[in-house]
Amino acid sequence: MRDQFLLRPDRIHLNHGAFGACHTTVFSAYQRHQLAVESDPNDYLLRTFAARMAPVRKALADYVHADPNDLVLLANTTTAMNLVARSLHLQPGDEILSSDQEYGAIDKVWEFICEQTGARYVRQPLPMPAPSAEAIADAIWAGVTDKTRVLSISHIAAQTSLVLPVAELAARARSRGIVSVIDGAHAPGQIDLDLQAIGADIYIGNCHKWLGAPRASALLYVRRDWHERLEPLVISWGWRPWQPGPSRLVDDHQWPGTFDVAARLAIVEAIDFAKQVLEPGRQRCHDLVVDFAREAHSGLGLCALGALAATAQMVTLALPDCDAFALGRQLLQDDGIDVAVNKWSGRPHLRVSVQVYNDFAELDRLLQSLHRILRPVR
Amino acid sequence: MRDQFLLRPDRIHLNHGAFGACHTTVFSAYQRHQLAVESDPNDYLLRTFAARMAPVRKALADYVHADPNDLVLLANTTTAMNLVARSLHLQPGDEILSSDQEYGAIDKVWEFICEQTGARYVRQPLPMPAPSAEAIADAIWAGVTDKTRVLSISHIAAQTSLVLPVAELAARARSRGIVSVIDGAHAPGQIDLDLQAIGADIYIGNCHKWLGAPRASALLYVRRDWHERLEPLVISWGWRPWQPGPSRLVDDHQWPGTFDVAARLAIVEAIDFAKQVLEPGRQRCHDLVVDFAREAHSGLGLCALGALAATAQMVTLALPDCDAFALGRQLLQDDGIDVAVNKWSGRPHLRVSVQVYNDFAELDRLLQSLHRILRPVR
Repeated sequence: MRDQFLLRPDRIHLNHGAFGACHTTVFSAYQRHQLAVESDPNDYLLRTFAARMAPVRKALADYVHADPNDLVLLANTTTAMNLVARSLHLQPGDEILSSDQEYGAIDKVWEFICEQTGARYVRQPLPMPAPSAEAIADAIWAGVTDKTRVLSISHIAAQTSLVLPVAELAARARSRGIVSVIDGAHAPGQIDLDLQAIGADIYIGNCHKWLGAPRASALLYVRRDWHERLEPLVISWGWRPWQPGPSRLVDDHQWPGTFDVAARLAIVEAIDFAKQVLEPGRQRCHDLVVDFAREAHSGLGLCALGALAATAQMVTLALPDCDAFALGRQLLQDDGIDVAVNKWSGRPHLRVSVQVYNDFAELDRLLQSLHRILRPVR
Repeated sequence: MRDQFLLRPDRIHLNHGAFGACHTTVFSAYQRHQLAVESDPNDYLLRTFAARMAPVRKALADYVHADPNDLVLLANTTTAMNLVARSLHLQPGDEILSSDQEYGAIDKVWEFICEQTGARYVRQPLPMPAPSAEAIADAIWAGVTDKTRVLSISHIAAQTSLVLPVAELAARARSRGIVSVIDGAHAPGQIDLDLQAIGADIYIGNCHKWLGAPRASALLYVRRDWHERLEPLVISWGWRPWQPGPSRLVDDHQWPGTFDVAARLAIVEAIDFAKQVLEPGRQRCHDLVVDFAREAHSGLGLCALGALAATAQMVTLALPDCDAFALGRQLLQDDGIDVAVNKWSGRPHLRVSVQVYNDFAELDRLLQSLHRILRPVR
């Protein structure tokens, strides 16, 4: 399987969560789409653009259990969150309820919005290790006030790898009239995704991470009653269009000026591949993650953040005090291991991602490297 | 030359201005960059991202006579104009001075901004045919008032194909303390571009049209004293970065979340190719445009908009009253000619683009088709 991905063979890749990786099947389809676009740009990008996007939205909507006209394709989740955050027109004193486990760039989005509007970004600390999903939901919910207007929360936390109880939180938000925005950057493909069951007002997710689509492709799902309230981040032809399309959401956001449609077209092939190969491989990947975390604990005394049952194909370990960036460089340069080592909450952490191309021998190599490098530190 | 582009061979392509087209040299480099990114995404998109963008900005800055740190790469000019327009924080009554020859999507950007802020979009009608560049500048300038805060004008008008006197207008704007924003969507590669000589505060341009780079790649140039005043359209890691880069402009806008960096990397190869092949071919293309317009006038009585000396590699003809979209479809379906036929100012127009892969036989085919189709109409 490893040589069916295009990742350089002299490295151990344990950071799929960062930018994903394409199987050759999907990547070939992607480059074929690019050649097709290049052969007839006016057809792909103008005359039949909307017609070509429709089956992609349909395939993705079926995959995540949503109405295709409540879903539109964007470049990435950061872009999607900017779009949503700017549209809300928050007022001074309004509060955005969130957690201390959000992705750094998303924190920045809300910090920017708060500076512009006078709103307040409330980052509830989550108990670590969290005794239960209920405890996480309660910890977030303890931050609700009469001024809470937005719940913005990750589905799978980028820093801690934990799957957060977003359906429970979306339901609580709905009961209080708070708009819920779920950042599913790491969710599509890594876990089963049922947007109907989650019940959020807005859900964003990347297709180029765990679904295996080419970069950059992401989804923005919006409940019908919110279509009118979101504004395009990039005003273009679709804003108040000559010929209205299938929904206001699709019209407003589908065409942000000229872009490479090939990556979005290849979402169809990515979904096929995900169903055939990635989904059947999920349990093995999760088992590898659990085995790795157990070995790291028993052999190195490193603790995973949260319960292993709350992880999917990523796990984050707390590291002893060290220079996180230096450790990451050392693992890469000395041992050829590409893995995420970052500071979070003021402490160094290591996040391991496991995709179908990984095996335990690779994780074992990482364990050995950590053993060698961290022993003198501790 | 024709078979060195990837455009489908059974069509006559006279609409390069819409989405451009890549020479095989550039397209191959593009797909090689994509494979390289795919082999080591964490390197290309994270560890060495800024270092890899620096020489691209340098090559492009040299090409357009600007400081590399006053220039950043974006997806397209529509995105760039949205970024600029949202950053200006216009107040009720403020005016944006423009013309009636702007690109429709850019008109929408300003209409959106005006609705949000209470500003006013002033579209000065340009005299057609324009007796001189001075007359065009004067016609636009007749719209200046004490409330004019922004001059937003095309360098090469998408609808009329005319090269507008942007240096003169930028100088007038500067003398009145009006910020100048030049929409050079069609300029890079089609005409010599000297941003120092133009002297605008902000200049945006596409690299994937006439410079022959892959879609989607564009430049945003901003004078140093405006760097601090623009806000990112997509707030991401670069906003208030941990490690400041070469300029505020680059930090703020260079990383809009995960994207396909390959198209931007290939700008370097596109510039090389443009210098070797596209620039030497410019005069021939312009001559073809002029010959076509003269033939269309003498043979069909169709008038070009503006002086032919004010065109570069595109020309727009006013058509007799007809269904523009039906005519475009007919040319495509019956005669295999892909050319822009649109309504502008309530009347049908035909815009012909000529790139190095075109020859007069193709333009002659278009003339014959127009003769056949339009005769009954007239």
